[in-house]
Amino acid sequence: MRRAALPAFGDSIMRRFVPSALTAAVLSVLCPIPGQPATEHVSAAADVERRFDSAIDPAMMSAWMARLASAPNQVGSEHDAENAGMLLGLYREWGWDAHVEQFQVLYPTPISETLELLTPGRFKATLTEPVIPQDKQTWKTAGVVPAYVVYQGDGDVTAPLVYVNYGTEDDYDTLRRMGIGVKGKIVIARYGSGWRGLKPKLAAEHGAIGCIIYSDPGDDGYAVADAYPDGPARPAAGFQRGSVGDTTLYPGDPLTPGIAATADAPRLKIADAPSILKIPVLPISHGDAQHFLAALTGPVVPYGWEGALPITYHVGAGKISVHLVVKSDWRLVTIRDIVAVMKGSTFPDQWVLRGNHYDAWVFGATDPMSGQVALMAEARAIGELAQHGWRPKRTIVYVSWDAEEPTLTGSTEWVEAHAAELKQKAIAYINSDSSGRGFLNATGSPSLEHLVNRVAARVTDPETGVSVLERKRAQLRLAGSGPDADDDDRELAKIAANPARDIPMAAPGSGTDYTAFLDHLGIPAVDLQFAGEGDIGGVYHSAYDTWSFYTRYADPGFRYGPVLAKMAGHIVLRLADAPVAPMRFGDLADAVSGYLDDVKKLADERRETAAAQAKLLSAHVFRLAADPNKVKAPPAALKPVPRFDFAPMESAVAHLRRSASSYDAAIALRAPHLPPQDAARLFVLISGAEQALSPETGLPGRPWYRNLVYAPGRLTGYSAKILPGIREAIEEQRWKDAKRYIAITAAALDAAADRLDSARRVVLPNP
Amino acid sequence: MRRAALPAFGDSIMRRFVPSALTAAVLSVLCPIPGQPATEHVSAAADVERRFDSAIDPAMMSAWMARLASAPNQVGSEHDAENAGMLLGLYREWGWDAHVEQFQVLYPTPISETLELLTPGRFKATLTEPVIPQDKQTWKTAGVVPAYVVYQGDGDVTAPLVYVNYGTEDDYDTLRRMGIGVKGKIVIARYGSGWRGLKPKLAAEHGAIGCIIYSDPGDDGYAVADAYPDGPARPAAGFQRGSVGDTTLYPGDPLTPGIAATADAPRLKIADAPSILKIPVLPISHGDAQHFLAALTGPVVPYGWEGALPITYHVGAGKISVHLVVKSDWRLVTIRDIVAVMKGSTFPDQWVLRGNHYDAWVFGATDPMSGQVALMAEARAIGELAQHGWRPKRTIVYVSWDAEEPTLTGSTEWVEAHAAELKQKAIAYINSDSSGRGFLNATGSPSLEHLVNRVAARVTDPETGVSVLERKRAQLRLAGSGPDADDDDRELAKIAANPARDIPMAAPGSGTDYTAFLDHLGIPAVDLQFAGEGDIGGVYHSAYDTWSFYTRYADPGFRYGPVLAKMAGHIVLRLADAPVAPMRFGDLADAVSGYLDDVKKLADERRETAAAQAKLLSAHVFRLAADPNKVKAPPAALKPVPRFDFAPMESAVAHLRRSASSYDAAIALRAPHLPPQDAARLFVLISGAEQALSPETGLPGRPWYRNLVYAPGRLTGYSAKILPGIREAIEEQRWKDAKRYIAITAAALDAAADRLDSARRVVLPNP
Repeated sequence: MRRAALPAFGDSIMRRFVPSALTAAVLSVLCPIPGQPATEHVSAAADVERRFDSAIDPAMMSAWMARLASAPNQVGSEHDAENAGMLLGLYREWGWDAHVEQFQVLYPTPISETLELLTPGRFKATLTEPVIPQDKQTWKTAGVVPAYVVYQGDGDVTAPLVYVNYGTEDDYDTLRRMGIGVKGKIVIARYGSGWRGLKPKLAAEHGAIGCIIYSDPGDDGYAVADAYPDGPARPAAGFQRGSVGDTTLYPGDPLTPGIAATADAPRLKIADAPSILKIPVLPISHGDAQHFLAALTGPVVPYGWEGALPITYHVGAGKISVHLVVKSDWRLVTIRDIVAVMKGSTFPDQWVLRGNHYDAWVFGATDPMSGQVALMAEARAIGELAQHGWRPKRTIVYVSWDAEEPTLTGSTEWVEAHAAELKQKAIAYINSDSSGRGFLNATGSPSLEHLVNRVAARVTDPETGVSVLERKRAQLRLAGSGPDADDDDRELAKIAANPARDIPMAAPGSGTDYTAFLDHLGIPAVDLQFAGEGDIGGVYHSAYDTWSFYTRYADPGFRYGPVLAKMAGHIVLRLADAPVAPMRFGDLADAVSGYLDDVKKLADERRETAAAQAKLLSAHVFRLAADPNKVKAPPAALKPVPRFDFAPMESAVAHLRRSASSYDAAIALRAPHLPPQDAARLFVLISGAEQALSPETGLPGRPWYRNLVYAPGRLTGYSAKILPGIREAIEEQRWKDAKRYIAITAAALDAAADRLDSARRVVLPNP
Repeated sequence: MRRAALPAFGDSIMRRFVPSALTAAVLSVLCPIPGQPATEHVSAAADVERRFDSAIDPAMMSAWMARLASAPNQVGSEHDAENAGMLLGLYREWGWDAHVEQFQVLYPTPISETLELLTPGRFKATLTEPVIPQDKQTWKTAGVVPAYVVYQGDGDVTAPLVYVNYGTEDDYDTLRRMGIGVKGKIVIARYGSGWRGLKPKLAAEHGAIGCIIYSDPGDDGYAVADAYPDGPARPAAGFQRGSVGDTTLYPGDPLTPGIAATADAPRLKIADAPSILKIPVLPISHGDAQHFLAALTGPVVPYGWEGALPITYHVGAGKISVHLVVKSDWRLVTIRDIVAVMKGSTFPDQWVLRGNHYDAWVFGATDPMSGQVALMAEARAIGELAQHGWRPKRTIVYVSWDAEEPTLTGSTEWVEAHAAELKQKAIAYINSDSSGRGFLNATGSPSLEHLVNRVAARVTDPETGVSVLERKRAQLRLAGSGPDADDDDRELAKIAANPARDIPMAAPGSGTDYTAFLDHLGIPAVDLQFAGEGDIGGVYHSAYDTWSFYTRYADPGFRYGPVLAKMAGHIVLRLADAPVAPMRFGDLADAVSGYLDDVKKLADERRETAAAQAKLLSAHVFRLAADPNKVKAPPAALKPVPRFDFAPMESAVAHLRRSASSYDAAIALRAPHLPPQDAARLFVLISGAEQALSPETGLPGRPWYRNLVYAPGRLTGYSAKILPGIREAIEEQRWKDAKRYIAITAAALDAAADRLDSARRVVLPNP
């Protein structure tokens, strides 16, 4: 489901650049991986990794992908169930203790749908993707889902049409300034600039009664690359299916928020489920969209709103009339997570979790099978290690998730079903999803950052022969050196140029299966992907995401699939075999400290912006600087921003930094000598420390999201908001919430620090 | 000819923001316009301006435009000659002493031309613009110049085609890194990003044997606005004629550089004229271009190179073959400048010059008639003032230039013919060219900045009712307040928000008729334009720039034409009637001081960039960060940048600041009391001070360009390079030239300062 690759570890707007504390820098010399310092242990681990690597077979991965993606395998489909059976069988064949776990979730499917232009002219949208002669897979049209977004609200509406660009809040404010509203109208938005579900959600909030989302060729079509099959871009008739269920509120089955969707679970009524939209929505191709967009009249769109269709884009006015119908079958379906367990020899109650989904929108060679076959290769290789006598110290749990595409449903329901046990036993969750060719993108919890860097330093990039980490460093150094680089780019480039410093991971948002682990329970997570060369997302969620596509454009020769398997596999193996859990909390404390700086800066900037805007408004600058033929109103006035008292956060961050650095220093000295029973006590404390950052309070208006350090943005969807209780309150001018969440977040940080202090006392009872 | 409006006074990359020296700030209180402090004088001037304004008649302007633009009027055409006669007659009718001044200049015209795609497929470019049914003017196709750029080199070539984006040096370096050369090939470049003539010039330097330039709809076509006649954008079959004569080397007749092209002038052979290109070039429409671009294969273009045609843009490879033929009639034609003189009562040997060209590429309603009719309205209004007894103190010279379009030929030849007299008598030159609706753009010499601001403060903007200056301030304040504002935008916004500070003018580049005055002789100049709303340049140099176009899209209702006339007219009147020349040299000194800071910063940045690039090259970052399927080579290595000794410049700038501020202060005290004979002595000294900045040395490799403060960039064409002898040497890695021009420029500044010191002694013999 995950949309676009983040182009860099840490290359998101929320990345952080806090210089490592001195202690941490020292630690990296004393103790390359906390909990794994002894030379003999390292060489044993290296030997295990070598054997693991030699069991990774790209030909096998390619064959699995071909089989998994040989028929439409969306949730509830026959082939999805077949794939479940295949995966279960293979895990067992490879020596894992595997089983299927089922849930019953609401999963509507289309019964009928219509989109037509009534006036001017007459045009009926095709709503299906034609076969591509050169790709035989696409000939199998039986069972292919037509143009559809799941969890839209059915309806039959006829109304004028308005083009709303990407359909963000800023776009609606621009329209308002032009004197154009969408109340009672149907909107057409282009894909991009945030998660698709926000487009109809905001449209409905602004009074629209229907929503069309189309793929503009300027975003992933012919303007970017040759269209499939000549290249990786979206063909004229290709469209993007997906979910518009409101995962920013809660992911998983819309009828069972917060609890597992077992057969007998209490369920909301469909009409009461807050994550289901209330207006009909259809996704369409640019081939279809051009007919509607070309019919729009009225003002030419503002600069930057134009796409790459060969038309002049207009906002819409006059007598255009559009008819939109969507009718769905709202039923429960059974979903199947395939769970494979390999019990730990020393710490059976510490679980290293690794997952990737296997349901797709159509064939899904890239999304999700590119990640799924990496996970399979890892499971097979670990199985082989085990068949040759190796056992992990900790329990390893591999899961092939079903139903990620609807609303991360398979992983969410499973996490909700096992929440209590996971909070006790999970050490970390490692995720993947779509992956391709190019550079490593790692997103996740800062306490795992050093581990990810260490692993990336030892996996070889197939195109250049240097390590994956070294190639990443080159990418960041180049990105930070150009004339377009911003301060963050330059800071990252500086970090990348210093081999003694770790590359920060990007702040985790959402859009794939780590969400429930990290955002609901506070379990540390890492998401891995290779990207940046080749695929540009042009077949994403279309019927053209086939094995042929993948092997021609996403990862020709399956050169990077094995690299993903090695990255994820080595992380799993090191997590499983380290004498103590290899987290480095100094990195977490540094990250949070950087986030606090960001939030303080945000508050200052917002205060200045509001004050500057007030001056411009009172001097009539907006009116005088506007073309009176185009602009009818000034922007909405911003509220004055108070000065927030960040002292509780400052003191909590200082506490966390002290506690983290004492703990890290203690473990660096003592880890090799720690008796197993102390390591087990320690585990409870440090996983408690991570989880303390996700207290049951939750975020304002969306209590399912408990993590106070990371959440997917309410108005971004995929991308992360850091310290979201505070940050989003400032962004949304909710001053009371901001103050309240300064206190709540500070308390959570203090609680985490307290647990690290206890953990340190276990390591060094008499410091 | 001038292509695009600079969107703001000072809104060019070369604008400056040096805070006025304290003295200057004090002056603005003591003496609103130096030389014009006495209350009775001001009110008399205000009365003259009121009478001037009441004589400006938009209906008349509209009628003149309709007549001037009623037939093709390019150089050498019948209607151009008719327009010359009409203008001469009108000037005389309005009471001016008017005459025609003729020159014989090389002006090739097309005999035959062909552009065809031979392989793959077969397509012949239309090379003509079809009529537009709704615009009857376009029905008059007799005498319309086909697709042609003057001063290209004729030829008949058949070769493969390569797309080179805008065809800049950076673009060729990008191609080299992709492993693609243009030697022996024909290139196709899109219009935009610098002056058209640089595209074939650089193409030829890189070995290309032919060049096609096309108008991409992403730059001025349907992607930006509705195409004419539905809107102001360029229609599919519209193309941009123009000149590719190398005006960055020298403007004017290619055969008589530096001297007037009189009948008996010595002339270069055509083959030896350095400003004539050596390869054939044709401009085409996007309707034609699409056939060629769609036939290109090979790599997809780098990000940012794609235009808005509905194709995937490729760089070119394989068997594409293109045939290009251009054959011209290389003959001399007679051009006619219409010169109208009104003799000054007090200072007949001090000339205030005002000009606008009247030759066009086809009908030229906007370019140049929008400016020409403003100039006519001024001349008529001044004539009326004179008929009612008023006489200017100084001589006013209005000129309607012929042959601006070829290479600013009419003005250049005239300036070359009268160079000695102009250096003695010219106080300033005020220029206009195309103009439309919106905001004042003023470009020019800093010594006139305060005057321009004062005038703009008293001319009313017709859309908002505030002054033109106040509206400009609003535009700059808004531009500097957004999230995309850069440091310069923010600094300009700060200046604009302070009513006590003048808005800086943009640094003058080239592209219109002030060039010979300012860049060759060092005579201060101002260029005025209204723009920013409406027209987006879509009919620029096409057959669609008609009266219908102008009155529908550029300036409906002729609301801004009169405003341009008032701005230019008031400046002329104030220059003509001020007791002493109303320059403020503190502004010039501040500007030069700011430019020196910019150049020092540039040197530092280049030094850092070269050092950073050397590090990246030695760490193989370019290779490791590149997609090996796409990038074949690292960028060209930059030379290490030495530390330049700017001390001579620093000391000269300090000298200029001291001298300027003493002079300004003296004149503020004494101007009203200065006897006319002292004012005349003063004039020689202060015009000498301005001209001292343009010594005969000239710029490296282009001695016609003498101004050491401003020149059109060698590699930008239209836009300005400040302190060009130093700046371009640094940019082009010519370290010896940089050092040499630090000394030469410093000496010129010192000479200017010395003359201001002498001028100050005339004003205050015993300070």
